[in-house]
Amino acid sequence: MLLKSQEHLSVLKVIIITALLIIFTSSLSVSTDVDDSLAYIWPLPAQFSSGNDTLSVDPALCLSVSGKGSGLKIVEEAFERYKAIIFEHEVEGVNSHSVFNNFRKRRSRGFDIGTLKIVVHSDNEELQLGVDESYTLLVAKNEGLSIIGEATIEANTVYGALRGLETFSQLCSFDYDTKSVLVYKAPWYIQDKPRFAFRGLLIDTSRHYLPVDVIEQIIESMSYAKLNVLHWHIIDEQSFPLEVPTYPNLWKGAYSKWERYTVEDAHEIVSPKGINVMAEVDVPGHAESWEETFNSFASNLNPRTVVHNWLGGGVCPKAVAKGFRCIYSNQGFWYLDHLDVPWDEVYTAEPLEGISDPSNQELVLGGEVCMWGETADTSDIQQTIWPRAAAAAERLWSRREAISTGNITLTALPRLHYFRCLLNRRGVQAAPVLNKLVQVYGSEAAFCMPTREEYVCSQQPGAVL
Amino acid sequence: MLLKSQEHLSVLKVIIITALLIIFTSSLSVSTDVDDSLAYIWPLPAQFSSGNDTLSVDPALCLSVSGKGSGLKIVEEAFERYKAIIFEHEVEGVNSHSVFNNFRKRRSRGFDIGTLKIVVHSDNEELQLGVDESYTLLVAKNEGLSIIGEATIEANTVYGALRGLETFSQLCSFDYDTKSVLVYKAPWYIQDKPRFAFRGLLIDTSRHYLPVDVIEQIIESMSYAKLNVLHWHIIDEQSFPLEVPTYPNLWKGAYSKWERYTVEDAHEIVSPKGINVMAEVDVPGHAESWEETFNSFASNLNPRTVVHNWLGGGVCPKAVAKGFRCIYSNQGFWYLDHLDVPWDEVYTAEPLEGISDPSNQELVLGGEVCMWGETADTSDIQQTIWPRAAAAAERLWSRREAISTGNITLTALPRLHYFRCLLNRRGVQAAPVLNKLVQVYGSEAAFCMPTREEYVCSQQPGAVL
Repeated sequence: MLLKSQEHLSVLKVIIITALLIIFTSSLSVSTDVDDSLAYIWPLPAQFSSGNDTLSVDPALCLSVSGKGSGLKIVEEAFERYKAIIFEHEVEGVNSHSVFNNFRKRRSRGFDIGTLKIVVHSDNEELQLGVDESYTLLVAKNEGLSIIGEATIEANTVYGALRGLETFSQLCSFDYDTKSVLVYKAPWYIQDKPRFAFRGLLIDTSRHYLPVDVIEQIIESMSYAKLNVLHWHIIDEQSFPLEVPTYPNLWKGAYSKWERYTVEDAHEIVSPKGINVMAEVDVPGHAESWEETFNSFASNLNPRTVVHNWLGGGVCPKAVAKGFRCIYSNQGFWYLDHLDVPWDEVYTAEPLEGISDPSNQELVLGGEVCMWGETADTSDIQQTIWPRAAAAAERLWSRREAISTGNITLTALPRLHYFRCLLNRRGVQAAPVLNKLVQVYGSEAAFCMPTREEYVCSQQPGAVL
Repeated sequence: MLLKSQEHLSVLKVIIITALLIIFTSSLSVSTDVDDSLAYIWPLPAQFSSGNDTLSVDPALCLSVSGKGSGLKIVEEAFERYKAIIFEHEVEGVNSHSVFNNFRKRRSRGFDIGTLKIVVHSDNEELQLGVDESYTLLVAKNEGLSIIGEATIEANTVYGALRGLETFSQLCSFDYDTKSVLVYKAPWYIQDKPRFAFRGLLIDTSRHYLPVDVIEQIIESMSYAKLNVLHWHIIDEQSFPLEVPTYPNLWKGAYSKWERYTVEDAHEIVSPKGINVMAEVDVPGHAESWEETFNSFASNLNPRTVVHNWLGGGVCPKAVAKGFRCIYSNQGFWYLDHLDVPWDEVYTAEPLEGISDPSNQELVLGGEVCMWGETADTSDIQQTIWPRAAAAAERLWSRREAISTGNITLTALPRLHYFRCLLNRRGVQAAPVLNKLVQVYGSEAAFCMPTREEYVCSQQPGAVL
């Protein structure tokens, strides 16, 4: 039984409507718990440089889209979503509210960044495996004649533009002193592209049904970590929740009449949001124990088959050696329902392990973290997915050299703590990074992001997390 | 360590894009797990009657507001929110989409309910303790000359109208066969009002900071259970996250510079949403231990004091006997961070226990469930609050006689299961009702709402939940 200690309970129970404030600041102070030498962007961009300027961003930030893809609605919609995220502290009509203006120290000279320019070169918005997701992002003081600074995203496709928007949103921080959104360490010059084309998350709606709203929350949260494939494992032996109009009896295999997806629901789920939703219907349905398909049937597989490696290591190396393409999901590290796997084991699992030949390496399309549904439902799925799925996301996006050297407790962990807090601020129920079992009972009263000392200590052998 | 058994894993890992569907419906069928004699409305209305008609509701449902309060924006905004909830399966532009129309068996004769009429008698929208939250809701076939049916909410205040809208939304069910929203068991005639004026939930942002978005999600979810007071315990000895402009050093006591609330944030949180947000700043801050104030200082209290009973039973009876008003939060049952308290102990805890004199009973304003923050944060707060807060919400709203007699395993539990699934569908991470420890590791693959047999069995002594 887990009970908090009674001594720590708040017991002042006479209701106080107006309160006398007692000044007791002497013993309290905001901790400075960020290592400024790190770039707090998750996943880490392929190439970037930063400087020492601080730029302010106008809450009335404008969008200016150009290029052949400028007519595509998806960029404009994403810009509006990100604007709401970036200016979360902005209150509508606040400028005309005298109470607030008294305490608002808005810069009189205006803002450094008033427009975000997005250039999209292609008008093709087909979202296929291998779609170009590269982008260039520049955030700098304008050095020309204009006094206005500049923020520009340039991309070949709308999907590159979406990834750039996410990065831009992560550069924007709310500053509590000036009450404005600032970009620190400008000028930023970022050239970015993913290491792998396939960066997936599996959800399983057969073992526990997930409502459409919840699936859409998950899709939204995936875009924050630049994952790009939702592998929707719709059915399995436990239930068949999907409507198949030509076989109207199939979804009678749902758990209940409410735990079903209409074709309209499915259409809504797979509709364009910058994430490829791969809907999977098992054929012929599961038998009781199913082996790694490749291990048993390699000689019968069509050479165009993509082998999804779910068992331990060693399968992808064998598959690519035979010329098959491969997706990595080593269950020892990337099955998110294995609650005892800590973030660093997820982070260091390497899809190319054991594959040294460059042409074989190219056959590894990427990887997928798997949120199997036997023991997670609506109430705890997000905290089981995050933040560990983000650890895999960086492995799949960022350059291998950049994230595989040095002490990850110092280079990756503080950034992952920060990203977890970012997810929380965006309303995503990501669990603390260092929970011993990811889902179980929260830690004691604490910082969202532990102080540097705390997370370094907690990595020592034998430490209680 | 909790690991699922490997035999149950999905291992078919060759990616299937187009799938041959094998018909295996013979062994599967949707269970009929609802006891039709119950009214699936939570909390149970004060008075209601139902019939045997089934009425369809137009997805283009119109709002028609009249009465002195018709100009108040809050009703219109709430109507739009509820419309999105009621018609969650409606896909924009779906009518013009031939793929869907082929399978859509829309009634050719139109819909029974095309307009929701709301009458609000008062234009006073002040949200004070004791505000009139009563409403009358009628959903019936129109028996007059018109062939159109009728749905009407009549209320003295906008807050009564909001409670009526929630009830109306709970009467509306999506029917998967006709793909339309239906009201079963019409005509419904409901006359409703709360038993207690104060129906609170406490959150604690000192032990763990909660982002503004998360607090707003909590406020939204409270309205589904007709709770009406968010007691925001902002500060405590662990941290001081709130900006106080006249004492600008105070919020330096926050955990970190991001874990703070600006006055604008606070303004956003307390802005009108039909829930009274009671912001509390402890004075003079906590000493190390702290007793039930009333027990120690009763003789010194101003007679207008409201005593908030947090310790065990027996305090409210003593307080009201001395003429004080009282709010009930018996920690044995209504502290939500006590994870081992099952739903039925929350449900049967009675604010009027030990108070028989009717004039003393009137001094009990209501009660409050407390989500103390020592061990819950953004990642698990919603699953810790729900569904047990709903059990208290019915205790505080519904008539004592109606919910205190009979076998609650048969009369309340199925409805609470249903309400938990409703919360899930609305994107709220409510935990399963019968979890042994509410937050811990989900149950095995399962129905959202267990079958009748399952929940009856699981109440037997010794059953494994």
